[in-house]
Amino acid sequence: MRQSQLFTKTQKEFPKGEISRNAQLLIRAGFIDKLMAGVYTLLPLGLRVHKKIENIIREEMNKLGAQEIFMPSLQPKENWEQTGRWKTMDDLYKVIDISGREMALGPTHEEIVSPLVKKFVNSYKDLPFAVYQFQNKFRMELRSKSGILRGREFIMKDLYSFHLDEKSLDEFYEKVKEAYFNIFSRVGLKEKTYLTFASGGSFSRYSHEFQTVTLAGEDIIYVCEKCALAINKEIKGETSKCPVCGGEKFREEKAIEVGNIFKLKNKYSHPFDLSVTDQKGEKKEVVMGCYGIGLGRLLGTIVEVYNDEKGILWPETVAPFQVHLIEVPSENPEVKKTAEEVYTELEKKGREVLYDDREVSAGEKFADADLIGIPYRVVISEKSLAKGGVEVKKRSEEKSQIMKLEELIKVLTM
Amino acid sequence: MRQSQLFTKTQKEFPKGEISRNAQLLIRAGFIDKLMAGVYTLLPLGLRVHKKIENIIREEMNKLGAQEIFMPSLQPKENWEQTGRWKTMDDLYKVIDISGREMALGPTHEEIVSPLVKKFVNSYKDLPFAVYQFQNKFRMELRSKSGILRGREFIMKDLYSFHLDEKSLDEFYEKVKEAYFNIFSRVGLKEKTYLTFASGGSFSRYSHEFQTVTLAGEDIIYVCEKCALAINKEIKGETSKCPVCGGEKFREEKAIEVGNIFKLKNKYSHPFDLSVTDQKGEKKEVVMGCYGIGLGRLLGTIVEVYNDEKGILWPETVAPFQVHLIEVPSENPEVKKTAEEVYTELEKKGREVLYDDREVSAGEKFADADLIGIPYRVVISEKSLAKGGVEVKKRSEEKSQIMKLEELIKVLTM
Repeated sequence: MRQSQLFTKTQKEFPKGEISRNAQLLIRAGFIDKLMAGVYTLLPLGLRVHKKIENIIREEMNKLGAQEIFMPSLQPKENWEQTGRWKTMDDLYKVIDISGREMALGPTHEEIVSPLVKKFVNSYKDLPFAVYQFQNKFRMELRSKSGILRGREFIMKDLYSFHLDEKSLDEFYEKVKEAYFNIFSRVGLKEKTYLTFASGGSFSRYSHEFQTVTLAGEDIIYVCEKCALAINKEIKGETSKCPVCGGEKFREEKAIEVGNIFKLKNKYSHPFDLSVTDQKGEKKEVVMGCYGIGLGRLLGTIVEVYNDEKGILWPETVAPFQVHLIEVPSENPEVKKTAEEVYTELEKKGREVLYDDREVSAGEKFADADLIGIPYRVVISEKSLAKGGVEVKKRSEEKSQIMKLEELIKVLTM
Repeated sequence: MRQSQLFTKTQKEFPKGEISRNAQLLIRAGFIDKLMAGVYTLLPLGLRVHKKIENIIREEMNKLGAQEIFMPSLQPKENWEQTGRWKTMDDLYKVIDISGREMALGPTHEEIVSPLVKKFVNSYKDLPFAVYQFQNKFRMELRSKSGILRGREFIMKDLYSFHLDEKSLDEFYEKVKEAYFNIFSRVGLKEKTYLTFASGGSFSRYSHEFQTVTLAGEDIIYVCEKCALAINKEIKGETSKCPVCGGEKFREEKAIEVGNIFKLKNKYSHPFDLSVTDQKGEKKEVVMGCYGIGLGRLLGTIVEVYNDEKGILWPETVAPFQVHLIEVPSENPEVKKTAEEVYTELEKKGREVLYDDREVSAGEKFADADLIGIPYRVVISEKSLAKGGVEVKKRSEEKSQIMKLEELIKVLTM
């Protein structure tokens, strides 16, 4: 894409009161715009990153054999009364229809997916299976000071699984753990993300969170020095030993919860009478699991982990473009000509290129490139041409390198 | 995909009170589920069709050079007061935040996109450009009896364009017309869809709608017998002649509005003071256009146009799968073996195949195939094998044909 066509611009300023590093950088670089506290627009650059994350997650969900669906945000009050959460869930947005009918704006979808599945499932033969969606969630957050880490409106991937018994749930749950590690690894957070024991609520001893260590984190976790599992502070009192290896030494860290997985068991199948006939002809309540990842939060976490004083450093897998091509303004027509050539050639080979063809100074272009944070910067200037080629630099490295045009194409399209 | 894995099933029944043909068929065949009036879940088959429609629209938007973004559903009351629509828009859902702050649930996004664009646009050099999104809209419809033709919640593609003057708007508007015809042509509605003159509201003489002729239509249009343009009944009184060719003979038809395009001019740039400095250094209000397509409505319209007494007949471009492969239960192991072979081979070649490997009768499989409406039905049975191959039938034709395996692969993967 030609940068001159991009309707957004980088900014020196960001909205007052925006104290989080992720939102400051994402707003200044033109990835997101703040509409109000906890509510953001995804701009072209931000949507590109968001979709890359979405596609990575979708691939891992499909590998699990899960089926994608799309459930509504407008949800009948009756469904929420059935589980008792109409009154107990503090962050539920409520809407009144023209007829006076009350509805919830979905913060999650157990109340919808359970009666939905009930319509199709009768026998143990119909189990196990899992459905997932990417869907806008609404949560009336009291504090929304963490940029896109804690939104009032955000896209979530929510996966729900349905089983005949706990053994089947346990097996699938382990597979989801693996899928989640694949996802966090693919988006660049492998080293910093820990499987963390957290409270299971009323229906299970533990649940599991995936916590990414960063100073921006709102959670405190204790990482076991022996096995690298972690415990959330909320249950640290209950157990002084690591529940996995028995280790007793822990490192305290601030962390962001980037994913969570729950064994719901019959918590939602019970109120909706979601049951099947088992092999013996007996009625059995379906056993459920649920598994979430907030995409905005994951995007924000990547920015918290990958930034320096100049801007963002996107991992290649989620970068909005792979190459930032910079044409340094020059009287020499050869510069523009070469830049156009490189642009055409790289795009033809399927690379995503942001081509800075704007009529602004080289200094401004370099500063913007650092702020936006595309992994490879390719500069075409009189100087680079005189040295026989183009200048290539990784965003994460200080040193640049002169390459011949053919060499560049080869390296960048491998 | 193996049909035995699909968690949905076809149904003989549909919800009482569902009087529209599109929703009856889509519910029975397992494409959608009704949560409440005007609010539906997209099930795996329905989401596949929805995504195909989305991708066709996205391709045509990108060809126009429009940039994709994603704006929020939660919208500040102040923005809606700025344009006066907080009080005048009857179908606006209103939400109250925990702080008592009122918000709208976005039924459209002029109130958001105008101040957004204002942050980035200063000079005539920044114009023209266009942004679009696929985003969930909320409208408090009084009557929601038309299945997914008139939802309370639905995904809409909304495109907004920004120009220095009306000439630039007019040029872009014509290009959007073309893009819209491409879209309706690609989803199979070319022959039945008419560019229709409608009321322009307070800011323009006419707007344009794209109306697809079908008995399920809620609108009445008059198609000019001379030039095949149409006039919406709402303005028929104002003009007895065709505004394009002057023709005076019209055919009355029922039709569904599948798209609309508006020249907004300064209607929304004015209240938000969205303006630029022109070539002479003078301040000028930005001229806007907006262009919508409701994806659920388009999907429903396709079903209204393409169905028979047995079920749906999807156009190939939007079908959930291209091939419905049916294994007729048999004692002869060769049947299953061949079916598995065909399935593997077609998937390997990139065809989307729904493989009916369920343990149910041939009759049930055939009835389901007709109901679901995938364009090609391929049957493997003892009979077809005895005749030396597989039986192929188009959903839209009565006659089937025996082909050799190699021939089938060749025909279906061309």
